[in-house]
Amino acid sequence: MGETSDDRRRTALWVHAHPRRGSLNGRLFDVGTTALAPHYDVTSSDLYEQRFDPVLREDDLGSLAGDPGNMGDLLAGAYEAGELPSDIRAEQDKLAAADLLVLQFPLWWYGPPAILKGWFDRVITGGFAFGDVDPESGIPVRYGDGRFAGRRALVVVTAGEDARTLGPRGISGDLDSLLFPLTHGVLWYIGIEAVDLHVIFDADDIDGAGVDREAERLRERLRHVDAEPTRPFRRLRDGEYRGTRALRHDLAPGRTDLGIHRADVA
Amino acid sequence: MGETSDDRRRTALWVHAHPRRGSLNGRLFDVGTTALAPHYDVTSSDLYEQRFDPVLREDDLGSLAGDPGNMGDLLAGAYEAGELPSDIRAEQDKLAAADLLVLQFPLWWYGPPAILKGWFDRVITGGFAFGDVDPESGIPVRYGDGRFAGRRALVVVTAGEDARTLGPRGISGDLDSLLFPLTHGVLWYIGIEAVDLHVIFDADDIDGAGVDREAERLRERLRHVDAEPTRPFRRLRDGEYRGTRALRHDLAPGRTDLGIHRADVA
Repeated sequence: MGETSDDRRRTALWVHAHPRRGSLNGRLFDVGTTALAPHYDVTSSDLYEQRFDPVLREDDLGSLAGDPGNMGDLLAGAYEAGELPSDIRAEQDKLAAADLLVLQFPLWWYGPPAILKGWFDRVITGGFAFGDVDPESGIPVRYGDGRFAGRRALVVVTAGEDARTLGPRGISGDLDSLLFPLTHGVLWYIGIEAVDLHVIFDADDIDGAGVDREAERLRERLRHVDAEPTRPFRRLRDGEYRGTRALRHDLAPGRTDLGIHRADVA
Repeated sequence: MGETSDDRRRTALWVHAHPRRGSLNGRLFDVGTTALAPHYDVTSSDLYEQRFDPVLREDDLGSLAGDPGNMGDLLAGAYEAGELPSDIRAEQDKLAAADLLVLQFPLWWYGPPAILKGWFDRVITGGFAFGDVDPESGIPVRYGDGRFAGRRALVVVTAGEDARTLGPRGISGDLDSLLFPLTHGVLWYIGIEAVDLHVIFDADDIDGAGVDREAERLRERLRHVDAEPTRPFRRLRDGEYRGTRALRHDLAPGRTDLGIHRADVA
């Protein structure tokens, strides 16, 4: 088996959520997608450019619109029936093909902009990305498992605040915890493993030379992103959560912080 | 001074973010706004009903559209110049008048639906809600201070998962931490104090009798919401954050979890 034993060319999806193409984010989007091109077939979702509609509403349900039930189950039903709107199916097709997912956005109110939050709400539906149950164990296939298991993601985020303010004891909360709903709640839920966040702090005060430095830092990061370790969240199927719900008492005993969900915490 | 010394009738703003008026959320919206009416002038923002546009874009900047700078500063400039769009000014007027703010939504991907996230992105702008600096101390007026200081908020959230899954050691992360970007990052940032979350777990499996029970539980909660203690986050101006950024070493020593930002943690 030689170096080229995996002949399949890999695919990356870069999702970008900043309104200004002339911004630091716009520059990093261009730099990043270009840097990946030698190694990946790169597709992108430039959400503002596409005028992506982030509002999940009845219209997404096709012929199930108005049916009783909760939105999540109905969305899964609409997926199974092939009735999701074409803009959603297009995003699902891109995500389904992606070995590497990059999510890039400015931190607005300590989370992704609405246009990206709604991409999760509408695109990552049951049936498509989760919802199976393991027939042998009866355990739901989620948190580290499922169709997207083994794929990886990089989160690129610009923040107006500095590294101390968003650091482990920073007044705004540490960024890893603030984005846990994304790295664990969205990505890991469907099996995607995130590498460490790529953060540009003080992004509002950056000058031209600073932008060039950040562009180079992102290029360098992407050169090795395939070889980086991912954050080791615990897998549901490994039996560490009692009744699939709460962490066993013998693991991270007495602790109740979000850090207990890392598999490298004893 | 008698019981009626504060003659001003208070105002509540109820923001609702569920697409279905016939849902559990729709019912709780009706029940909640009705229950408050004897004690408050109740206004509401039913975001789906209003077809609220949650996408912050260049159009929000008025004559500053296309100007250099970051979106946050430009939004503040557009506010000061009276150039924000009318839908945003209407929301700001409602928020400015509110002594009590209720935010009600289903938990989607471990956070608010995009339509509510975008309400934060677009409505809570600099100039309007934050951005002052204390002239004596030079400390920015935020985290517990400012125009909205002393007002209170109730977050009403329905979740498909159960109390163990979203509890302190639950696999999905505890809900207080998942919503820290909202209770601390949005509300406390502009001075608004939140009382404990009002959570409806297992919301997807609830039957008619369960809906009635939840309606009554919400009514009961609202009866006393004015008297409840709020969660005691630390105030920036109290000097517990070094250089306004990271928590002093002598407070919650060695800890790096989000719980360190509570003022009742030694």
